[in-house]
Amino acid sequence: MTTAAASRRDLDALLRPKSVAFVGASDKSTFSTIAYDLQRRFGAADRTFLINPNKPVVHGQATYPSVADVPGGVDCAFVMVPQRAVLESIEQAAAAGARAAVVLSAGYAETGPEGAKRQAELVAVCERNDLVLLGPNHLGFANMVDGLAVCSLPGLTPRPGPLAVVSQSGALAGTMSLFAADHGIEFSFVVTTGNEAMVTAEDVLAYLVEDETTRAVAVFAEAIRRPDVFLGAVRRARALGKAVVMLKAGSSELSARTAVAHTGALVGDDAVVDAVLRQEGVIRVGHLEELLLTGHLAARTGPWTAPGVAVVSISGGACDIVADQGEKLGLPLPSLAPETEARLGTVVSELGHAQNPLDVTGAALMDHALMGRVVSILAEDPQVGMVLAVGVPDPSLPRVRAALDAASVPGAVAATIEQALTGPRGRATLDAGMSGLTYLPSTRDAVHATAAVSRWSAWYATARADAPAPAAPPRPAVRPGVPLSEHGVRTLLAVAGVPVVPGVLATSADQAADAFDGPVALKIVSPDVQHKTDIGGVRLGVAGPDAIRAAYAQVLASVDVLDPRPAVEGVLVTPMRSGGLELLVGVVRDDQWGPILAIGLGGVFVEVLRDTALLRLPATAREIAEALASLRAAPLLRGARGVPPADLDRLVEVILAIGGLALSLGDDLAELEVNPLHVHGSTIEALDGLLTWRGR
Amino acid sequence: MTTAAASRRDLDALLRPKSVAFVGASDKSTFSTIAYDLQRRFGAADRTFLINPNKPVVHGQATYPSVADVPGGVDCAFVMVPQRAVLESIEQAAAAGARAAVVLSAGYAETGPEGAKRQAELVAVCERNDLVLLGPNHLGFANMVDGLAVCSLPGLTPRPGPLAVVSQSGALAGTMSLFAADHGIEFSFVVTTGNEAMVTAEDVLAYLVEDETTRAVAVFAEAIRRPDVFLGAVRRARALGKAVVMLKAGSSELSARTAVAHTGALVGDDAVVDAVLRQEGVIRVGHLEELLLTGHLAARTGPWTAPGVAVVSISGGACDIVADQGEKLGLPLPSLAPETEARLGTVVSELGHAQNPLDVTGAALMDHALMGRVVSILAEDPQVGMVLAVGVPDPSLPRVRAALDAASVPGAVAATIEQALTGPRGRATLDAGMSGLTYLPSTRDAVHATAAVSRWSAWYATARADAPAPAAPPRPAVRPGVPLSEHGVRTLLAVAGVPVVPGVLATSADQAADAFDGPVALKIVSPDVQHKTDIGGVRLGVAGPDAIRAAYAQVLASVDVLDPRPAVEGVLVTPMRSGGLELLVGVVRDDQWGPILAIGLGGVFVEVLRDTALLRLPATAREIAEALASLRAAPLLRGARGVPPADLDRLVEVILAIGGLALSLGDDLAELEVNPLHVHGSTIEALDGLLTWRGR
Repeated sequence: MTTAAASRRDLDALLRPKSVAFVGASDKSTFSTIAYDLQRRFGAADRTFLINPNKPVVHGQATYPSVADVPGGVDCAFVMVPQRAVLESIEQAAAAGARAAVVLSAGYAETGPEGAKRQAELVAVCERNDLVLLGPNHLGFANMVDGLAVCSLPGLTPRPGPLAVVSQSGALAGTMSLFAADHGIEFSFVVTTGNEAMVTAEDVLAYLVEDETTRAVAVFAEAIRRPDVFLGAVRRARALGKAVVMLKAGSSELSARTAVAHTGALVGDDAVVDAVLRQEGVIRVGHLEELLLTGHLAARTGPWTAPGVAVVSISGGACDIVADQGEKLGLPLPSLAPETEARLGTVVSELGHAQNPLDVTGAALMDHALMGRVVSILAEDPQVGMVLAVGVPDPSLPRVRAALDAASVPGAVAATIEQALTGPRGRATLDAGMSGLTYLPSTRDAVHATAAVSRWSAWYATARADAPAPAAPPRPAVRPGVPLSEHGVRTLLAVAGVPVVPGVLATSADQAADAFDGPVALKIVSPDVQHKTDIGGVRLGVAGPDAIRAAYAQVLASVDVLDPRPAVEGVLVTPMRSGGLELLVGVVRDDQWGPILAIGLGGVFVEVLRDTALLRLPATAREIAEALASLRAAPLLRGARGVPPADLDRLVEVILAIGGLALSLGDDLAELEVNPLHVHGSTIEALDGLLTWRGR
Repeated sequence: MTTAAASRRDLDALLRPKSVAFVGASDKSTFSTIAYDLQRRFGAADRTFLINPNKPVVHGQATYPSVADVPGGVDCAFVMVPQRAVLESIEQAAAAGARAAVVLSAGYAETGPEGAKRQAELVAVCERNDLVLLGPNHLGFANMVDGLAVCSLPGLTPRPGPLAVVSQSGALAGTMSLFAADHGIEFSFVVTTGNEAMVTAEDVLAYLVEDETTRAVAVFAEAIRRPDVFLGAVRRARALGKAVVMLKAGSSELSARTAVAHTGALVGDDAVVDAVLRQEGVIRVGHLEELLLTGHLAARTGPWTAPGVAVVSISGGACDIVADQGEKLGLPLPSLAPETEARLGTVVSELGHAQNPLDVTGAALMDHALMGRVVSILAEDPQVGMVLAVGVPDPSLPRVRAALDAASVPGAVAATIEQALTGPRGRATLDAGMSGLTYLPSTRDAVHATAAVSRWSAWYATARADAPAPAAPPRPAVRPGVPLSEHGVRTLLAVAGVPVVPGVLATSADQAADAFDGPVALKIVSPDVQHKTDIGGVRLGVAGPDAIRAAYAQVLASVDVLDPRPAVEGVLVTPMRSGGLELLVGVVRDDQWGPILAIGLGGVFVEVLRDTALLRLPATAREIAEALASLRAAPLLRGARGVPPADLDRLVEVILAIGGLALSLGDDLAELEVNPLHVHGSTIEALDGLLTWRGR
């Protein structure tokens, strides 16, 4: 349904038109009324032409019967006509020179197969006329940078700010605009993409990341249709130090099902999406308020120089909440340096011990300069990357603002409990000098937003310094589609630099018996037998020559039950390994995102606790090390319960080699699994391997 | 510091006085001004007497030089004088007949040891004068039921509602009152307790639970000073079907440390507090907004007849968020019954498949009766205990309200994104028929509050039908303080009905060798040796008569290294057990809450993952079963990885018996541990036991 990615030129034409025609403008339409009212407030009425063949005047302005009648033509058609009249409007607009169509009208792919056909027709007409199409079934877009509102989002204000919003949902973009107006959040662009028949959220994200006014982008999406465009966009965002915050719906089975019905797009496995977002430094949030406020904070502060937050409040209870909930979200609240403590001591003499979060007590009600002085001192602590002042009394706000303006690290002011700036209390706060400060409307929002931006800042600092992921090695000499036995997989792994447990491919019982001292494992080797254990093709822990000979015969006989009897390469004999840890390292090709690496500890951790970490390939050594550290079972890797600590550097090298092999096999690979990968200190060996090709 | 629990009569005198003297009333004091303004708005000015020896008129009303001058005396003194004048004011108030003192003044225990001495003096004076004391260092209380505001909480409105608030923090109570006014939340009582020199938050909770207007209580607390009063209160709340919602600070180490400094009270181990709250059905929340909105919802709905929530919204995106975040919080969103689906189909013909959450799409913008009809149908689904309508357009509100009023299950209306009722948008909502409806200001708040009340409703349904915890068995014949050997503990366990692995206390090598067929464990048995393994006093998996004889000698010799050589009862010989699961079941006496039962699976689960469930004793069979089910390792108990499913009924019986033994040993017990408790299907045996007494 969705066509090739929209180009930069397409999006310039779409989002920065010089003139707009409102096709279907009508006093009876709420959409039209809201949109034209916005254009007036944005000062863009003179670039807006109202098209209505039946009413000479709409919204108090003279109309044109058709786009063709607009002198000099128009750049962009904002199409609000009933669905049956859309194609004609588009043809006319194209004839009048329009390069872009913003189609509000519904009744397309979201309604089912018939609607999808109509949508394909719409796309074909746009393509034939060389028009870029936004929508259909959405609420348009607004460009605060150039002062243009081609949308029906009632809350928007014309003053541009550093946060851009992209939303597949028009309704949610509408509520977000209202929230932003209530909370002092200013946007550069707001773009709703609806059915994404041509332009997707990823296309818009990639475009907005490059916009100079935009310092962060907040995205609401049910589906990511173009993973490659998305990855390109978030990497550009990293290069430019801009945060991408995302409310990606579909983490529950229920909403994933709904989203498929709603968007017709493949939603994909949320665990994979979540892993990709984490790996690429995209801040994922769960609620609309967090989407906007995290984006707002990140847009205003940029990445911090240190992830630590210093908090000051007039209420000990608010300090408790920040400490408790901050810990849950991983918000670093560093202890203050001795020098900081000493300086605070001179300012707040009653404080026995200057902690972070710092409760300045009711003393700040008497001394209106106190909180400002404290903010200045906290901002200079070497571990502090951001200062947060919670529950600042209105008379203290000007001094706090001056302190933050002068500080070398960014800061924000938060209300103790949710408080919009448009409410009666918020108004007083505004009057008291709030305007221009970064405002977070509650302790709750402040904890969520600062924890997220802190995490992103830490990620940014390491990710930008990270070595690039190693290039995939050359493709080994295997024929895609031809099944490989365990022996074949062992050979591939070894060539790729993955250490493999020694083994002898025995073709006689004597050869098997002589292979190794100590107990051994025996396994049937055949490219046609994937589930060796099920047919009795595996014997473990066999000791002594006689027992090994007997086991050899049994294992070899296991394929006799199969019809046709598969070709057998021999019996693989390997020494038993004990002690240490067993990991599972697998690579599975995801339909959307390509090869995904999964790492977990064997046994209960994978089987009972589903404790695995995922990474999209290629991955860097740092990303693999962090994935290992993120496992709940990570303490075992660091040495616990009598197991020696794993050589983590070596382990990362081995996993990199497994990932490299998977990449080198290209799109034909369905799955490559090393299970177990035995880890005993620095001795790391693949004990078994499995490879499957994708069906053609 | 804190005296005995306040009686019901004391709290009647304190919270329902007929008249109040504002001692230290002054036009210059913000506290006094706010408080008197409230009394006027509450219609209680005629019962309020202003005391000021220097100003004949304050707040536009004639003052009295002293409480003694008030004709007829007063019931309650609201003391706002500087700290040095407090005692004198209290003596005078008592002489004038006051039975209660509400002391706002600070400078007591919160400032350190000197302040603590002053606080002890204050309590002594109140006790001598038979006065009940609220505070000091707080902001007073308001009683909306009788129309009385003895407090400085600016946002309060006089109309009584079903939610009571108790807060140790005055500042937070102030912000909560403002939030409540902005969001249509009405209170029965708001009581701040401050330093709790006499009356604690638990005392107030116990009192308010009995109040008829009050249907739920929201508590902010840094410390629970009187666990017994607290437990009594929450059990009365259960008996009356009233929810208790609590923001208990101190879940992080940081805030626990701060709270100790701030309140001087023992905060205790948060894991224990958390377990007690869960066991007693107290809804624990992390943020102030959640405290108020969960309390508000619970107060208005009471417990639901079914835990399932049906959700309808005009926005598919909001449905996604409810589904995703609801799943994370365990909110049950049941599939709709076929009959419900059929009925919805007649109302919303375009909906291919009627799901929950239900997206009615923009159709609701055209048809203002649609959402009301949908609400009526959803409310009759048998699995639905509550209906939530998100993002209802204003013109649809009256019909939704009528539908909810007529429904047999409770309901609420939520804004899609945070929106106070006092803001410009909220005002429109109010005018559109919102007043009287239960309003939740955002999807985020709705998900949190409904998930919490749903969980509480499910708990309430089972807890009220629960059999009482079994009485502790009679105390066994052991002398507290006298150390017990493993053999002694085995005997105690067996007598208490705990199955114990068979064992022979051998006093000769031959006796050990003859004890059992198969491999055995041998352990030195001495009341004076607790760490048998450390000295080589344990041998496991010994097989064959010769090996057992040798091991007997080794184990016996292990105590030779100790000086003095301890008395030895013999060598315990037990058969080895393998397969199945090993549990740890322990009871530790908590200083605040008494005996706490800990249950976990041995090995990595306890050691690496800290996967244990805690219960305060006595616990019921249901509570133990739920604790087992709450373990991350619970799938193993249900049978996984080749281990047979545990006989859970039998396991619960055994754990009840261990808990019963711990209870029967009374306050002298420090710790009783069965580790491991071996579980193999219905064969459950204690393999080892340890008991320690509390030091005197």
